[in-house]
This record gives sequence, C-alpha cells and structure tokens, in this order.
Amino acid sequence: MISVGIIGGTGYTGKYLLEFIKQHKNIADYTIYANSSAGSKLLDIFPELLGVIENKTIQSVKELSYAHDLYFVSLPHGESLKYIPTLLAKGIKVIDLGGDYRLDTKKLYDEWYGFEHTSANLLSQKVYGLADLNSSKISGSNFISNPGCYPTSILLALIPLINNYSDNIISISSVSYSGSSGAGKSAKTELLLSELDGNVKAYNINKHRHQPEIEQELTKYGMKFPFAFTTHLLPIARGIYSTSTIHLNSAISEFEITEKYLNEYANSIFVRMRKVPPELKWVVNSNFCDINISVKEKTVVITSTIDNLIKGASGQAVQNMNRMFGWDDSLGIQKIIEN
Amino acid sequence: MISVGIIGGTGYTGKYLLEFIKQHKNIADYTIYANSSAGSKLLDIFPELLGVIENKTIQSVKELSYAHDLYFVSLPHGESLKYIPTLLAKGIKVIDLGGDYRLDTKKLYDEWYGFEHTSANLLSQKVYGLADLNSSKISGSNFISNPGCYPTSILLALIPLINNYSDNIISISSVSYSGSSGAGKSAKTELLLSELDGNVKAYNINKHRHQPEIEQELTKYGMKFPFAFTTHLLPIARGIYSTSTIHLNSAISEFEITEKYLNEYANSIFVRMRKVPPELKWVVNSNFCDINISVKEKTVVITSTIDNLIKGASGQAVQNMNRMFGWDDSLGIQKIIEN
Amino acid sequence: MISVGIIGGTGYTGKYLLEFIKQHKNIADYTIYANSSAGSKLLDIFPELLGVIENKTIQSVKELSYAHDLYFVSLPHGESLKYIPTLLAKGIKVIDLGGDYRLDTKKLYDEWYGFEHTSANLLSQKVYGLADLNSSKISGSNFISNPGCYPTSILLALIPLINNYSDNIISISSVSYSGSSGAGKSAKTELLLSELDGNVKAYNINKHRHQPEIEQELTKYGMKFPFAFTTHLLPIARGIYSTSTIHLNSAISEFEITEKYLNEYANSIFVRMRKVPPELKWVVNSNFCDINISVKEKTVVITSTIDNLIKGASGQAVQNMNRMFGWDDSLGIQKIIEN
Amino acid sequence: MISVGIIGGTGYTGKYLLEFIKQHKNIADYTIYANSSAGSKLLDIFPELLGVIENKTIQSVKELSYAHDLYFVSLPHGESLKYIPTLLAKGIKVIDLGGDYRLDTKKLYDEWYGFEHTSANLLSQKVYGLADLNSSKISGSNFISNPGCYPTSILLALIPLINNYSDNIISISSVSYSGSSGAGKSAKTELLLSELDGNVKAYNINKHRHQPEIEQELTKYGMKFPFAFTTHLLPIARGIYSTSTIHLNSAISEFEITEKYLNEYANSIFVRMRKVPPELKWVVNSNFCDINISVKEKTVVITSTIDNLIKGASGQAVQNMNRMFGWDDSLGIQKIIEN
Repeated sequence: MISVGIIGGTGYTGKYLLEFIKQHKNIADYTIYANSSAGSKLLDIFPELLGVIENKTIQSVKELSYAHDLYFVSLPHGESLKYIPTLLAKGIKVIDLGGDYRLDTKKLYDEWYGFEHTSANLLSQKVYGLADLNSSKISGSNFISNPGCYPTSILLALIPLINNYSDNIISISSVSYSGSSGAGKSAKTELLLSELDGNVKAYNINKHRHQPEIEQELTKYGMKFPFAFTTHLLPIARGIYSTSTIHLNSAISEFEITEKYLNEYANSIFVRMRKVPPELKWVVNSNFCDINISVKEKTVVITSTIDNLIKGASGQAVQNMNRMFGWDDSLGIQKIIEN
Repeated sequence: MISVGIIGGTGYTGKYLLEFIKQHKNIADYTIYANSSAGSKLLDIFPELLGVIENKTIQSVKELSYAHDLYFVSLPHGESLKYIPTLLAKGIKVIDLGGDYRLDTKKLYDEWYGFEHTSANLLSQKVYGLADLNSSKISGSNFISNPGCYPTSILLALIPLINNYSDNIISISSVSYSGSSGAGKSAKTELLLSELDGNVKAYNINKHRHQPEIEQELTKYGMKFPFAFTTHLLPIARGIYSTSTIHLNSAISEFEITEKYLNEYANSIFVRMRKVPPELKWVVNSNFCDINISVKEKTVVITSTIDNLIKGASGQAVQNMNRMFGWDDSLGIQKIIEN
Repeated sequence: MISVGIIGGTGYTGKYLLEFIKQHKNIADYTIYANSSAGSKLLDIFPELLGVIENKTIQSVKELSYAHDLYFVSLPHGESLKYIPTLLAKGIKVIDLGGDYRLDTKKLYDEWYGFEHTSANLLSQKVYGLADLNSSKISGSNFISNPGCYPTSILLALIPLINNYSDNIISISSVSYSGSSGAGKSAKTELLLSELDGNVKAYNINKHRHQPEIEQELTKYGMKFPFAFTTHLLPIARGIYSTSTIHLNSAISEFEITEKYLNEYANSIFVRMRKVPPELKWVVNSNFCDINISVKEKTVVITSTIDNLIKGASGQAVQNMNRMFGWDDSLGIQKIIEN
Repeated sequence: MISVGIIGGTGYTGKYLLEFIKQHKNIADYTIYANSSAGSKLLDIFPELLGVIENKTIQSVKELSYAHDLYFVSLPHGESLKYIPTLLAKGIKVIDLGGDYRLDTKKLYDEWYGFEHTSANLLSQKVYGLADLNSSKISGSNFISNPGCYPTSILLALIPLINNYSDNIISISSVSYSGSSGAGKSAKTELLLSELDGNVKAYNINKHRHQPEIEQELTKYGMKFPFAFTTHLLPIARGIYSTSTIHLNSAISEFEITEKYLNEYANSIFVRMRKVPPELKWVVNSNFCDINISVKEKTVVITSTIDNLIKGASGQAVQNMNRMFGWDDSLGIQKIIEN
C-alpha cells in the first residue's frame, strides 16, 4: 500500500485519475495539491463524484508535502519544472502527465514549447511512458513522462510497422481527430458548444507540439521517410481517432503485417487488434487502444482509437504506476476490463 | 424560362434541389417523379417545407413525361440506366446526381459498382460536372454526370496542385470525414443516432467507390504518384471535411502554391481560398467549397470542406444547370451568396 | 429605400440580422456600430460570410451617427438605455433586441434585472413586438421592444388559448429547452462543448428574466391562474422547444381549440399550426414558429418551436421593421419562405 | 453464489446487464437466451466488450433451461408472457425488465398495450421494483417487475412530495426528455442520426404507456389532483431529464420539502439530493438518480435525472436482485459508486 500525491489534476483528466486512484487497492491514501483551486472542495469541482469519492479539500501546492511515495504531476506547460526536480532529488517517484519532459533535448523545447528548459539534465533520465511498448524500461524507472494523447494513438499504431518494415516505406501521413476535452477546461470562445456543434476544423497544421514527440519516438524505431501529422477538432467531447496512411515500395500482405502486431501486443491487455476499423465508442471510458490494419497492394491504412482522457492521459499514467511498482497492469483501471 | 423534371429526389439531397428550383427565377415549373413514394404529397415527405413549396403530388416514374427541358436524375445505383439513355436520345438535357455515369469505362463499373453497365457508350459522352473546373465543357453539354460528394471536396483541393507540380509529388494521402446524411435516408441500425452519437469510424477502407472516381480525374491532370483515400463517418448529419497530405521531393513555398489556386479559382465564386484551415460550419447550408493550403518544407497539407448535400450534390447540380443554359452561376443558389 | 444602423450585433443573432438586411430590397445601406469590436472588419468576426457581405469596418458607438432611418439595437442589458432615448428624441425609429424595454414598469426592472431604469417613461411608449399578434400596434409605432426568445415561443403558443378560455384554466406549466447560442458568445466554462456535449440541465429555476415578461403579456389576455416557467439547456447550438401543459376545469375538444388558433393566425405566414408535435429542425434557420395542440379530456399540451436566433431575435426584428414601414411581412426574411 | 439466466438482453440495456453480472461477485455464471440472435457470439453483438466478457454463444430461448436461480427477462412487449408464468410456477426468481407486468390490471393492458394479458393473475403477485422506495417488499418477493425508465425518474422525484402534501397540490405537470437509446436498437428512419441531429420533438403526447404506470403508482400515495406527462426525444443517445411542475394551494418552504426527501432517501445510496438542478452528465453511466427541489411561493419545480439504460433499466434490475437475495445494494453496480 502506497500513498500518492496529485499535483494539479482538477481538469478533465484529473477526474479519471481520482476515480482510478480511489478504486486502486494498493493505494492507501492520496492528497491533491493545486494552485488556483487550492482551498476548494473536490465535490465543488467534480459534483458528479458525490457518493463516489470523499469530499477532500484541495491543498495548496505552495505547501507541498514530500511525504508521498509517488506524485502524479498534471500541470500546464512549464509549471512541472518547478516541482519535479526537487521530488526526484528526494528519491520520490514521479509520473508527469504534462509535456515538460516528453522531448529529449533542450533544443526541441526552445523550438516547440517556447520556454527555456531549466532541468534539461532530467530529459535523458526520464522514461517515455508508452506503457504497452516500453514496458521493461518503465519497470525500472523513478521518473515517467506520460505520452501525449495523440502520440499514444499514433505510436501504438505505427511502431510495429516501422520496426519491421522501415526500409519499405515511402511516406506516412497521420491524420488525427480529437474531442474537445483534449483542449482542457479553459474558457475560450472557440471551444464553446455554440461554435463547435456540428463543426469540424483542422488546427495547428504543421506546428502541433505532438509532432516532434511522435517523430522523436518513430526515429528510435528506424524512421527515415517523410512523415506528416495533422490534427482536427471533433464536435464531441471525448476520444481520439487516428488514421495513418502508409505508401510502400513493395506490397506486403495484410495478414503478414497484422501478425507482427499480434505478436508485439500479445501481452498487452489494453491493445486490441481489430479485423475491421474500430469505432471510437468501443474505447471511450476505457484504457483500450483499438487498432486495425487494412492493406490493398502497396497502400496500408492503420486506424487507431483511444479515449484521450484515459489511455491518452490518466489511464496510461496509472498503468505506468502499476509497472513502476511491479503490480498487475490493470489495477485501478480494472473496472474497465476483465475482472 | 424552362420546365424541369426531377426523377427520384425524395431523399436528403432532394430537399435542397426542390428549394433551389423553387427559388430559381428561370424555372417556370417542375414535376417530381419517383418509384416507391409516387402518389405521396411533397409535404408529407418534407414537412419542414410547409409554406415554402407547393404541396405537389409525386408522379410515378412509370408514367414519366418527356415534356421537360431538363431532368435531374437522383436514383440509386443502377436505376439511372433505365431512363437516361431514352432522355438523351430524345435530345433532352440531363444532370445525373447518381454514380451511374461518373466513371469512364465499363470495366471500372464492373469492378467497383458490381453491375453490368447497359449504356457504356454514353460514358464518354457525359461531361463530368465538376462545376468550378470543367466550366467550358459543361456549357456545351447535354449530359452532365454530377460528381460524388467526396470527389468534389478532394478534386477541387488537389487538381491545381497536380496540374502544376505533378513531377514533384512523392505521394498523396487524402482522409475524408462525412456527416451521416451522406449515407442517405435508409433505415439501417448502424446509422441510428444511438450508434453514432459521440462516435467516429473509418469505413470502406481501400474500397470506396469514390476512390476510382477521384483517381480517374486526377490522372487526367497528370497524377503518377501513389494516392490513397480513406473515408470516415462523423457524428453529425451534414458536411464533408477532407485533409490531403502531400509529400514533395523539393520544397515549394505556401505563397507560390496558394497563388496558383487563386488564379485557378479567380472566377469561381463558390471556391473560397482561406488563410487558415476552414471550419466545416462556414460552408454548411451553402454551395461553397473552402480550401486552405499549409506548407512546411516538403509537406503540404490541403484542407477542404463542403456541404455534402449542396456543393456535394444538389447545389453543384444547379450550378451545372446554370452553366448548361448560359445563366449566371449563382441563380437559384444565390440565397447563399451575394445578391 | 431606407438606411439602417445596427448598434451592437456582432454576436450570434447579429450574423442573421446582417444577412437579412443585406438581402432586403428596401434597405439601401447599413452601418454597424459597436464597443469592443469597433475597428474590426466584419469578416474577421463572421468569416463564414466571405462572399456574402461586404467586409465593412465596424464603427465605434462613441461616434454614433444619427443619419439612419432606423436603428436595430442589440446590446447587453443596461447598455441600450444610453442610446435609445436620444434616438427616439430625434424622431428616429428604433427596434431594441435587448431586454431593456420589454417590461412595463420600473419596479419590475429593479426586481428582475437589478438595474435602475433611467428612462422608465419610455416603457409605456414602446410597443412589444410580438409580430404575429401585435400587428396593428407595431405598424403605428416608432419604438419596438423585440420580445425575448423564450417568450416568443410561449406567447404565440398560449395567447389564443388564454384569450378564449381563461376562465376554464386551472394552471399552466411551461417547460422550455434552448440551444446554447441563447446564452450568447461568451467565454464561460459552463458553455464549453466539453461540458455540454450529451448534457442537459435546468437553470435559473423560478428566476429567469423571461418569466415576468411572459406573465406580463399573458395577464393582458386575462391570465388569472397559476403559471410556471422552467428553462433548460439543450446540448445543441440552436433552437427553442417549449411544452406548455394546461389543466382545464372542463374538457374542450382539440378541434375546437385548434380552430381558434387557425383563425388567429390566418394571416400570419410565419406561424404554422401542425397536426403533430413539431420537430425543432423544421424551424431552424427560418422565421417560423410551429405549434401543435394535443388534447385529452381536461389536459391540453401545446408544443411550440422556433429558431432562437431568428424568430426569437433577428428574424422577428426584421418582421417588425417590415410592419413599421408598411412593407410585406416577409421582405428580407423571404429566403426562408415562399417567394 | 448464484447462477443467472438472461432472456433477451442483446439490446442497449443488455450490454450493461452483462457488464454488471460479469463483475458481480455473487454470480458464479450466466447464460444468455434469445430469439433472432440465438447462435450468435456475444462479441459480435457487443464488439466493445472484447477483453471484458467471455465470447459466449447466445442460446436459443426455445431450449430454455430452468437451471438458473434467477432470470432477467428483457423482451419486447407481449413476449415475456410466454416464459415468466412457467418460471414462477417452478419457484424460480424473475426480474422482468419489460412492461408486461408493470400495470396492475388486465383492463389497463387492453387499453394501453393493446394485447390480451394471458397471465393477469400474476399482476397482483409481482412487486413493482422501484428499488429506492419499495425496498422491503422487494426483499420478500420472487417476482419483480422492473419500472419503466421515465416512471423511475418521475416517481422518485414525486412520491415523497405526494406522500406528504397531497392535499395541498393543485396540479402536477411532468415533462421528460430522453436520449434515443430509450427507443431501442431498431432500424427506423425516424431514429437515424441524420434525422435527430440537432433536433428535438415531443412524441406520444397523452398516449405514452408510461403514463398509466406513473399514475397507478402515484395514486397509491394519495394522488387526487390532475396530472399530465409529456415525453420528448433528445438529440443524444443516453439519459432522461424530467421536470415536474407542481402548483400548490398554499406555500411550503423549499427547506421543509427538501428535508422530507432527505429523510426518505437517507438510506438510498443511489438517490442524491442536489442543491442545484442536476446535470444529466452527472448520472450518465451510473445507477444514480439526482433530484433537486426548487420552490418559489406556491410553485415547486422538481428536476430529476437518470441514465435510462442503467437506473432506468439494467442498473435498477441488478439493485433489485441484490435486494431479493439480501445482498449489499451496490454489488455489481459498485464500479460506479464508493468502493
């Protein structure tokens, strides 16, 4: 039994992190720390959790205690830098749900995030927490950088292909659609239902921060072909649907490629290979990533879908915690899967 | 002033065709013919049009009159073949909103539509009615095959690029999302709101009938690189959003490419070039196609969006009629645009 | 031909006001005045209107000209008071789309709007612009207070009943559901798609400002029974659906009641009596109000539906302008109806 | 540990029944019987449950075994009559999720359901399974008729009021809005997303089968005032929101009424009294019923909301099972609440 601290976490992903921690049988207690919502009661922020969680008071991050065994950090870009180095220095385990440690070099931060990274030395210490592929590294780590939501959906869909057939690939183009909760709980006119109802738009074309994150990881598996990534907003709250189109030099059969994926994910209960293109609803409210591979001659189309708030954030974070402590992969998130 | 016959047209696109014809100042009268709904009153099918159109009785297509100057044909695949050859033989103008004459060869029909084409000789007589690009051919034609909804969104977005830079292109991957009305008014479980609410799915991967249609037209403009096309269902009723990713051998500036489009569409009031990725809502309930071009080094992303029922069907059909008769492009569909 | 000024009007209703004015054949020109958006271009605010309206610059209301024949005023509560008295004093016609002059007494303003009314003398001069019922008064007026969106849907549904059967009524309970655009284009967390998607909630129970407005008008037609009104938010952008339940002392037939409505609205092209409960979609994007009356013994249920931005705001305002100038009821809004 | 049979249950509510049974620690095994889907695999019907439930084969109801301790019956109207009398005669416990035994008299069935009830003698044996109010009767029963979805939302909201203040009530008008899943998984044009997207409509006014069910139960608590009930379709898949307006003869304070409810539901973990009108989303995917009471003078507005598929069907059925066997109220549905 461990004790857990949550720094931040009063946004959309925070709700699920709370629920998972609440029902996790190896977590004895937890404390929430925040900035602007310090002093508030949890049920004022999450009224839907009445009767589900205790109505704790949110503590101020200014009075952060170091008494917990593990901290989940869920803060805006640049904010995590203020707390994580100290926590790690004290030998405490950290899972960062933000983007502050996902990229591997200070140079990339300057370029894509626009801030001066003040603990760049930790960038190489972190393990990139793509739970279903980086399993062994995660087990031995004290510091996990939880992947972005889009990267989770695309990396799980592409890495086995690239790992096996990189030389045969002419180009990959990934197109992702996300529900609005991916933009967080921020009062912006452009995120109003009145604006988004029945609407779709591409955004941040060629400049989304998740693009260097995806390219960084794909490169580790041998990517040496052009890659593009375009993000869109769906007129619904939850879920990510990613479609990756791969042009090949020479044809490979759908059967052969799918076999590679089945082998790769044979022990991953949260990755489900599908014989037909998955539906977003199959994964909403779960930690699953559903993947389909469709091949016609030299064209491969891989569709993958996740719940952005769970597999793309809090669910994967809990899965990473389970790995770090050597627990069963599904603890705390087991309500979703076989029990 | 002309007289118009509509064969079929009691589905989702039919409503708009009726509205456009009703308000078109050069159309003196119109008659609707149908199969299963013959004998019904128009307002029983379109109750929302009470006070907008007269409550005509739908005639049986079995008693089709040849007294009209132009026929819009909007029938299921294979059905148009029964009427169009006769109409054309009598020298009557025809605009076919279905897919029966879109492809250029009998061989492609066998492969993609699964029926034996019984008037394949007409395939080469038809003009493919991509109104904003095939303008002059349309003007001189008696027989227009109205493009599919997906092809309209993608061809308008890609042809100027391919026409100018075909040799420089490594690959193109187009990903389209459509509202459910594109699937027609058919009572299928998979199209229920209960199934689609909050849902997304890819469908017909590598086997959508619009793929050979797109490839056929792109080939006329010099396509000699791999192309892929993947379709998805949006959890909303209307609109198509297409994202085409082009990988280039050598970089071209966004400015240069955009200039080519501005020139190409200088006289097309219905194509609006945008400096930012368009929003689907900007075009819903209009005959506009909005296009944006975003370039970063050797990656070009072109987003384009239309109303599938209007620009992707009835609106473009009326635009084609205007061209055939030498009328102003916007007649009948002018309620949407400057007046 | 007249010249029109619009004060405010850069919100959701403003878009439609612009479109209606643009296509109105008796309006020669128009100017827009605003506060915070002064200096902006119209197409920066309404990019969807590219090619539909000219890209005028919004003028500052501080430099308001008095050169127009009519002003539409669409400002937040309390702001109209700054301009309307002066306009009226100069003999200029005014249609106020806000709530500042809807109630008849200063006392009600203090209670329900919480501000001190500084031109209470004008409250009795205004005509309440319920266009389909107050027709003759509107014709002779220089100052119209355009009804609220909820009141429009409920008053048109209830007045003919109360006018004829007030003594027989035990109680009326009206329940309304509105799309989110009714709350305006304001950046509030509670109006995010992430909050409202798939959601419903009642709000302002027993304290909505439209309640005294409805009661005030119903009282003029003889209301002397208990009345209640409850508002809810729909998870869509547009439209109002109101359901009024009337308990009677003694039964009246559905036929008899419906006849009264048909007589009352015989000359109102924008009120459509329906034999079945109307669907919201039948009226969206139109100036129609659709009404159905369902009776079983001593229970009468009246359903009514409008587009909150058109019949509930800009459409009715233009209809009122047409009345004030003695023009045809449908000018400018005719794109919606028979033409 | 018991063994459970499910007859029917391949529709929308069936999915949740399966999930609850799967995770219920006192259920050793279960078998599904059906008509048209007999022979199918569960995961073909519920692909989203891959990895969550075993892929059992659905048995034919023609070969119904009587070996289970309890049967959940979830069949179309009139079908339950074929199985339930035999099950009960064999002393087996039954929970009927359909409407065949909800009303108390054969006469009401003839009038409202239009079929001849063939086991009318059982109507008085059944216990109406309104779990949070009929607790003690349910505990001692072998035969539970699970309430309709609308009645659950309205009865929990009204009974404590009527039970305490019936004499003071002038009239009650209940207005309910339901997501489309309440209409079941049936391929009807009117239930298509293309029809319902952005749409709202009232339906079955004064003739919904849940009306006599509600009136029957309210009468048991002393109703002697006029009551009306009107149902509407929401443009979303899930959830019911009910608004009941009560006109009183003399005022009672909000505090006093709320106290009565707090007392009534003091031991009901699934009824949550709210200080503000509840949001539908608070209860979706849970067995909660959230209720708010708002009073102004002699007007009482009670809003209540449930998940129609859970509290309005499968969740309440499992809650009833727990009562019948003397288990903790939340077993099997505990994933939703405190654990």
